[in-house]
Amino acid sequence: MNVKVETLVLFGATGDLAHRMLFPSLYNLHEDGLLADTLTIVGSGRTRLDRAAFHTQVREALADHLPEDRLDAAALDGFLARIDYCAVDAGAGSGYDDLAALLGERMARPIGVYLSTPPSMFGAIAQGLAAAGIACAECRIAMEKPIGHDLASSRAVNEQVASAFAEDHVFRIDHYLGKETVQNLLALRFANMLFEPLWNAQAIDHVQITVAETVGLEGRVSYYDGVGALRDMVQNHMLQLLAIIAMEPPASVSATAVRDEKVKLLRSLRRMSAADVKAHSVKGQYASGAVDGVAVKGYADELGHASNTETFVALKAFIDNWRWKGVPFYLRTGKRMPKRQSEVLIQFKPVPHNIFARVGAAGRGGDLDANMMIINLQPEENIRVKVMAKQPGLDRDGVKLKEVTLDVSLSHSFAGERRRIAYERLLLDFIEGDQTLFVRRDEVEAQWEWIDAIRDAWDAVDLAPQAYTAGSWGPSSAIALIERDGASWHD
Amino acid sequence: MNVKVETLVLFGATGDLAHRMLFPSLYNLHEDGLLADTLTIVGSGRTRLDRAAFHTQVREALADHLPEDRLDAAALDGFLARIDYCAVDAGAGSGYDDLAALLGERMARPIGVYLSTPPSMFGAIAQGLAAAGIACAECRIAMEKPIGHDLASSRAVNEQVASAFAEDHVFRIDHYLGKETVQNLLALRFANMLFEPLWNAQAIDHVQITVAETVGLEGRVSYYDGVGALRDMVQNHMLQLLAIIAMEPPASVSATAVRDEKVKLLRSLRRMSAADVKAHSVKGQYASGAVDGVAVKGYADELGHASNTETFVALKAFIDNWRWKGVPFYLRTGKRMPKRQSEVLIQFKPVPHNIFARVGAAGRGGDLDANMMIINLQPEENIRVKVMAKQPGLDRDGVKLKEVTLDVSLSHSFAGERRRIAYERLLLDFIEGDQTLFVRRDEVEAQWEWIDAIRDAWDAVDLAPQAYTAGSWGPSSAIALIERDGASWHD
Repeated sequence: MNVKVETLVLFGATGDLAHRMLFPSLYNLHEDGLLADTLTIVGSGRTRLDRAAFHTQVREALADHLPEDRLDAAALDGFLARIDYCAVDAGAGSGYDDLAALLGERMARPIGVYLSTPPSMFGAIAQGLAAAGIACAECRIAMEKPIGHDLASSRAVNEQVASAFAEDHVFRIDHYLGKETVQNLLALRFANMLFEPLWNAQAIDHVQITVAETVGLEGRVSYYDGVGALRDMVQNHMLQLLAIIAMEPPASVSATAVRDEKVKLLRSLRRMSAADVKAHSVKGQYASGAVDGVAVKGYADELGHASNTETFVALKAFIDNWRWKGVPFYLRTGKRMPKRQSEVLIQFKPVPHNIFARVGAAGRGGDLDANMMIINLQPEENIRVKVMAKQPGLDRDGVKLKEVTLDVSLSHSFAGERRRIAYERLLLDFIEGDQTLFVRRDEVEAQWEWIDAIRDAWDAVDLAPQAYTAGSWGPSSAIALIERDGASWHD
Repeated sequence: MNVKVETLVLFGATGDLAHRMLFPSLYNLHEDGLLADTLTIVGSGRTRLDRAAFHTQVREALADHLPEDRLDAAALDGFLARIDYCAVDAGAGSGYDDLAALLGERMARPIGVYLSTPPSMFGAIAQGLAAAGIACAECRIAMEKPIGHDLASSRAVNEQVASAFAEDHVFRIDHYLGKETVQNLLALRFANMLFEPLWNAQAIDHVQITVAETVGLEGRVSYYDGVGALRDMVQNHMLQLLAIIAMEPPASVSATAVRDEKVKLLRSLRRMSAADVKAHSVKGQYASGAVDGVAVKGYADELGHASNTETFVALKAFIDNWRWKGVPFYLRTGKRMPKRQSEVLIQFKPVPHNIFARVGAAGRGGDLDANMMIINLQPEENIRVKVMAKQPGLDRDGVKLKEVTLDVSLSHSFAGERRRIAYERLLLDFIEGDQTLFVRRDEVEAQWEWIDAIRDAWDAVDLAPQAYTAGSWGPSSAIALIERDGASWHD
């Protein structure tokens, strides 16, 4: 599987993701000499464009989305020289022959097809490629999330793709897995004796995963309504984060070993049912309010009609295995939150007994905060650990302790290095054929099984989203969800 | 026991320690407003001096040993106004009546007597004080190390002192316990969930304690020869450090609770015998060499005759309890080492399995260094933890890991705060009657029991010190002592 892609075909090449992320990432790889000289890139979209017009688009996209000092005229010319364009109307099923002709004429195999299209077209495109003879034995396909909208539909997409590409040639993207900090979390867990022995129900009180957005619907009206936060964020990014945080040590960092552990973990998630879904989940929908001092409309107003779609969800999840018995994993995501923030909090238990407490002197000297590890993914990436240390001094009223924050990521050790776009890593792994950071079919399906159970339970109890003010941290019941357990969201 | 001393009597007030440490520390406490206005200080020494002449001495000592910006003319006058002087010839047993007269006339009780005299005089002075009626019920006594030169003689001193002062009025000083970092180590261990669960034989490979000096005999000829490194350094400072590192969690930080745990630990040290003393100890004596680029004489040359006294000792100690079964504690101290350094190293075990190792690619990508905690006591005080983190990048040849050093003491959080002299803390605790950081009689005697067994074993096998070049880290057999176990000294 480690044959490199010689020709990269990019479906959705005129779209937003291609402009913002994919071409800037490919350009960075090109400028750093990480792409083979022989690699060709073929953009593809519904629009008919000649090569020069497409080059102009790419040029503009790079100018818009890369820092000025990254752009070098000679490198840019070299980069564009790799790029061709071929219109394919995947919806209408036309253009595949043109693409096959172009590929057949001039381009080397294996081909890697990267789909940045509406997810509803994944199956059709895979089959169109197969029909046109583009899905060769070593050819591979990458797909931007999501795969389906529930277990049944994801199975259908996976079946259609599987009829053209073998599973070990299918690369399901979750760009959170491309983040440096997610990979660093693996290093911290498994390259150190200091953390892993504590990574369990004996030492950890609970885990929080928050993915907060400040944006509302924006341009995603047609996609988002009817989908909602649970399927848009929890099903993919948040469950992948949860799996990486909670999985058992894999025997190696190979694609199979890591994904075996993740899927095992996902299958250990306790299913919610109608009996407990009200206690363990909260749905919300933003009403009008203000974000960053700017007044914003409510979701229904933005949409133009009432809707039952949740723009916020908070969950209390449990993992039924030896390691995590009884440890709540609180998940929370929403639109129109007070700030953009993706964060994982590992809340350790308090020490079993405070030897520094002074009898009859509550609040003096010996107050202890329990340790925590905070993994920030957005907007900044870093990993910090909070520990208690003695405050220097003569301790006349008992030992004075103070919380100290340690930066255990490399943000200080590696200050000055360019922080790569997550897609650089993922595109390069795709080109080089390393599936470790891509989601396997059984993972996607395990994710959907758990998500579908929540949606079924919501339907069974007829749970409607609760309104929350735009710019707040969601409905008050989301706060109650965690406070009932004596914990608090880390805002 | 929390009545404050109203009159502090300082024996050895014209000596080196008083000039370098005790008066500067008392001045700092005075300037910071930590001494009661009513506290009087009486200096005492063999020399006959009037008050003015003694004030001149103190003034000069402060000028020599305090940073210029600490000295304030008004504060200095106020400090000297507290200070009186009374000559006592403790050796001849004369002068106690003068002291009693001075104290009886003008000074309030309780009295705290601080002995910075040759240790051989502790017993005699305690009894002289009692005979002169100075050892009142609330009066207390502090003694600079060491107490005796073996178990029998330490018992004799303790008995003599005990006949005049109850144990809870006896303060045995080990200035290492006054160090901020030693107290911070207690905070790290017992105020955090992150360290204590790993603080045992399951996670720790071994512990190293090094106290290295660059100096040779200096002015200590009469004291040092015949005493040696084992009794000068290991018996007190190093065993106290070991006790604090290895003890079980006390129920509180009270003097009784902490010292109960320390003595329990000291009694768990496995005794050496003639059968294993050669495998578990190394004696050295420095020969001529160079330290810091300056040629220096060997010990015998400095002394003027051959000697069997060790100026270096390395030990491999074991603690026979559940927590530490099988974990070696390597202790090493010497004169004429390459640098002045007091350091404790907690070497964690390597992770049980390296998931980052690449098959057939030894040395690439996945090399892991085992975690360590390094506690520096001299010349700088700080606590650092070394962990592995992922080096940012695309990991084309496997995950790149890098050791990152975390400063878990407060040297960054509290930059700019004055680092206090260890004696400030100890003098204030003495004045205020807190025994926590002072060594209890049973601890001293447990220390001597373990040390005496080593000396007896040395005698039994007739172990002579091995020569080492001044400016080296001791005899090569000291290196072999640890390397045989697959570990290395952390130089």
